[in-house]
Amino acid sequence: MAGKRRKFFGWGYEGEGLSPTEADALIKGVADRYGVTLERKAPPIEAEIDLPASKVELPAKLQGFCTTDKDDRLRHTYGQSFPDFIKMLDRDFTHAPDAVAWATSEEQVADVLEWASSKRVAVIPYGGASSVVGGVEPVVGSGYNGTLSLDLTGLDKIVEIDKTSRAARIQGGIRVPALEAGLKPHGLTLRHFPQSFEMATLGGMIATRSGGHFATLYTHIDDFVESTRTVTPRGVMESRRLPGSGAGPSPDRLMLGGEGTLGVITEAWMRLQDRPTFRGGTTALFKDVYAGAEAVRAISQAGLYPANVRLLDAAETQTNGFGDGRNAVLVLAFESADHPVDAWMARALEICRECGGQYDEDAAKDPDSHLSGAAGAWRTAFIRMPYNREHLTTVAAINDTFETAITWDRFREFHDNVKAATEQAIRDATGRDGIVTCRFTHTYPDGPAPYFSFHALGRPGAMLEQWQQIKNAASDALIKFGGTITHHHAVGRDHMPWYRQQMPALFQDAVQGAKARLDPAGILNPGVLVDPAPTA
Amino acid sequence: MAGKRRKFFGWGYEGEGLSPTEADALIKGVADRYGVTLERKAPPIEAEIDLPASKVELPAKLQGFCTTDKDDRLRHTYGQSFPDFIKMLDRDFTHAPDAVAWATSEEQVADVLEWASSKRVAVIPYGGASSVVGGVEPVVGSGYNGTLSLDLTGLDKIVEIDKTSRAARIQGGIRVPALEAGLKPHGLTLRHFPQSFEMATLGGMIATRSGGHFATLYTHIDDFVESTRTVTPRGVMESRRLPGSGAGPSPDRLMLGGEGTLGVITEAWMRLQDRPTFRGGTTALFKDVYAGAEAVRAISQAGLYPANVRLLDAAETQTNGFGDGRNAVLVLAFESADHPVDAWMARALEICRECGGQYDEDAAKDPDSHLSGAAGAWRTAFIRMPYNREHLTTVAAINDTFETAITWDRFREFHDNVKAATEQAIRDATGRDGIVTCRFTHTYPDGPAPYFSFHALGRPGAMLEQWQQIKNAASDALIKFGGTITHHHAVGRDHMPWYRQQMPALFQDAVQGAKARLDPAGILNPGVLVDPAPTA
Repeated sequence: MAGKRRKFFGWGYEGEGLSPTEADALIKGVADRYGVTLERKAPPIEAEIDLPASKVELPAKLQGFCTTDKDDRLRHTYGQSFPDFIKMLDRDFTHAPDAVAWATSEEQVADVLEWASSKRVAVIPYGGASSVVGGVEPVVGSGYNGTLSLDLTGLDKIVEIDKTSRAARIQGGIRVPALEAGLKPHGLTLRHFPQSFEMATLGGMIATRSGGHFATLYTHIDDFVESTRTVTPRGVMESRRLPGSGAGPSPDRLMLGGEGTLGVITEAWMRLQDRPTFRGGTTALFKDVYAGAEAVRAISQAGLYPANVRLLDAAETQTNGFGDGRNAVLVLAFESADHPVDAWMARALEICRECGGQYDEDAAKDPDSHLSGAAGAWRTAFIRMPYNREHLTTVAAINDTFETAITWDRFREFHDNVKAATEQAIRDATGRDGIVTCRFTHTYPDGPAPYFSFHALGRPGAMLEQWQQIKNAASDALIKFGGTITHHHAVGRDHMPWYRQQMPALFQDAVQGAKARLDPAGILNPGVLVDPAPTA
Repeated sequence: MAGKRRKFFGWGYEGEGLSPTEADALIKGVADRYGVTLERKAPPIEAEIDLPASKVELPAKLQGFCTTDKDDRLRHTYGQSFPDFIKMLDRDFTHAPDAVAWATSEEQVADVLEWASSKRVAVIPYGGASSVVGGVEPVVGSGYNGTLSLDLTGLDKIVEIDKTSRAARIQGGIRVPALEAGLKPHGLTLRHFPQSFEMATLGGMIATRSGGHFATLYTHIDDFVESTRTVTPRGVMESRRLPGSGAGPSPDRLMLGGEGTLGVITEAWMRLQDRPTFRGGTTALFKDVYAGAEAVRAISQAGLYPANVRLLDAAETQTNGFGDGRNAVLVLAFESADHPVDAWMARALEICRECGGQYDEDAAKDPDSHLSGAAGAWRTAFIRMPYNREHLTTVAAINDTFETAITWDRFREFHDNVKAATEQAIRDATGRDGIVTCRFTHTYPDGPAPYFSFHALGRPGAMLEQWQQIKNAASDALIKFGGTITHHHAVGRDHMPWYRQQMPALFQDAVQGAKARLDPAGILNPGVLVDPAPTA
């Protein structure tokens, strides 16, 4: 990664993303879709931003690795949410952190937490900053004397590999590409690739219960976590490395989903996979998403555990440019490092057939099927999607996603209601129709994880309000019709109103009780999961 | 179950268990093994026990379903641990509860908790009472004005079945046989059979993270839990029914392993299975447990997910009467409700062969293999094992088990050290050699869950001390060499000294913080997981 510099505005590294020609085509597509002429707003550059003076004074102990430099503060203000982009386009850096710590050791993390606790400075753990839910934005209420963004990407080592147990001890700040590069010579892989994998850090994925490569079984990162090591304001908490335990509630399961509010994950022993050598995959067409969902349900309940069983509704295939928009498409794949997957694939295809699915027999036998055809097209589209936003937002195109999970018995009603509520909100907010599409990212024997994308044409200057109106309606529908506010995007600050409705009040209270023991001053990522400590 | 009465001393229902002839043979086997003559101590009967007067006065609101009757109090004093048996044989009922509540509704549970909180009476949730770790014994320290055993077996209904999602809403006090009988007409099964399944209740299994039927993948009950409903002293806490969620730490995962200290699980939505119709299984012989373990490791890491892959060391096959004691035996089985398992079985057998295993090709193809041969013998032995203790303890035979989990890289050293420490402790405590055997109950890609059985000849009157000396040495070794104090037997009161060593101190503190919010008076199962509240 050396030498690469992250973009100030947009996804990925400088020089990466859409070519000017591709960007023009993307914008033209929007203009054509809505029949309008679009003007582009200039992306922000650092020099034009005025930043208020830092409110904190760094003690000598922290000065070696903490800064109040404008550039560092600017670059630690936002994640990758839609509102983050709009606020950046508005040159709004009101909530820039007062300081940034570039930690390269656990001791430095501890020193930051000790100082911040004593000074009542809010600390926001910062890894890949790929949060699409306001997880890293230093909005902490008025009860703090400042904010510090704790950049953990300097904790980037693979410390130890245990090939026998297929596990490795890995630092929390390592990004997925570096992690995979370090494991590859050993024939191993974490095989957990969220859409943000180029930037995502291990600790961030654990803290947010990220969703990865596998569509079944090992969907979240949760089951890959063998043990965790966390620095809290009260000291280090390290769980024992065990394949399984029944000794009380799991300490790792408290850290999984803690979103930086309970401690800073500096290390974890992760369960790894052998690199797959056997593959089978194809795509099957279904008349609609409901027919496809029946096939996905049957496959999910058959105990076959495909690596991929991702259903795209007809509109989704079209917006991503690899379907004709008339059929739902199921991307199906098996992989193994141990054995041919023919028997697995054959049975899954039989289920597709029983549910009215159509597919190409020959493609299903192609060992490179995951790289070719519609599956390959989807893979490429999936990886490139995050690069679109830095262009779309400049022309006031509202383009966002939300995701959830629901049991099978309620899927159809849930899907239709959530889609209708979002479509209606787009009309209400923007005065014209938008597009709402759905795919399944992960599936379980008892239900799918539907992932919705929406597109609307906003109005420059009003986009944040328009987006919020749509987001509210969609989120209200998710909760009203029985889903979760998030399957793998996490809670952050943006999902808090619905997290409060979804989670049992007594559980929220219990988490606060746990947090009070680990973070007595309440400095860790205030406003996420737990309301900020009141003004002192 | 109607009409059946549970034994006062021993496992199961009255009239069940070993016949007099079988019991005689069992005792003769012990006498022969140690070359001694054995005298049997008479089992306790209720009439001969003197019980101190109850320390609590039940309010009118509770009198309809709570009692201070001697018989109820006697029958709620103990679980099924080895010390429980010895204390019963000693007619020691010092810690009998002062009252017993027979709850048949959630309101009654809430009423008990409210009264107990106000009067500082400790409440011990009581389900199958199959705890082998002191989970239900009302030993709560001196800070309470009495103890109440909260019997939940009256909450025994299947409330609702969702066939589409394969899930059911089930009350916490239902026992496994009744649960399975209720699901069977729908073609469904929870398929979770701990050795205690005849008595075990759903809520108890969730509270203790029990280990069940499946040797891989769905080992603990954890992953079968879709949502939970828990009554705490501060009210009801119910999680949302979801196939998967990433909205903060999982509320269910806090209840899983709570062992009755955080609330009373009155209901859960459970993920179910279709009843299997395809099966394949056989046994393979290995020269020793290490060679067998290599095969288990390879199978566990191959992504095949056998229902059974239980390795027994040579001594274990002999003590259970279905091996010649010269080979380690691997009981291997696949099952499916969806597809033939030939491809799965073929690859697993290939791995066995590669690791030097020998097996009968024909037996592997027998669809009834799980009921016949060594696998069937093991199944029968497994179910009947709990019936032995009520006979063995009367002749001062010390006979207990402990279980753990360890990563593969440390298995050999761990196994040898734990076994040696236990053997040495038996010699130290009893003055003669005993037997220590090992099997795997569950396995994971990163390690097995070894289960040790030990046999020793104790001395009447000294058995409790002798057992404790052996238990301490074995438990110390588990912790010292990197294992867990329990993979699925739970913590209870007996494992607390090692739980305190194993669990990060800050996590124990966090759990106390959570508990303080749910159970402010500290009345729920004091002494388990969290130290009892200090004397008021």
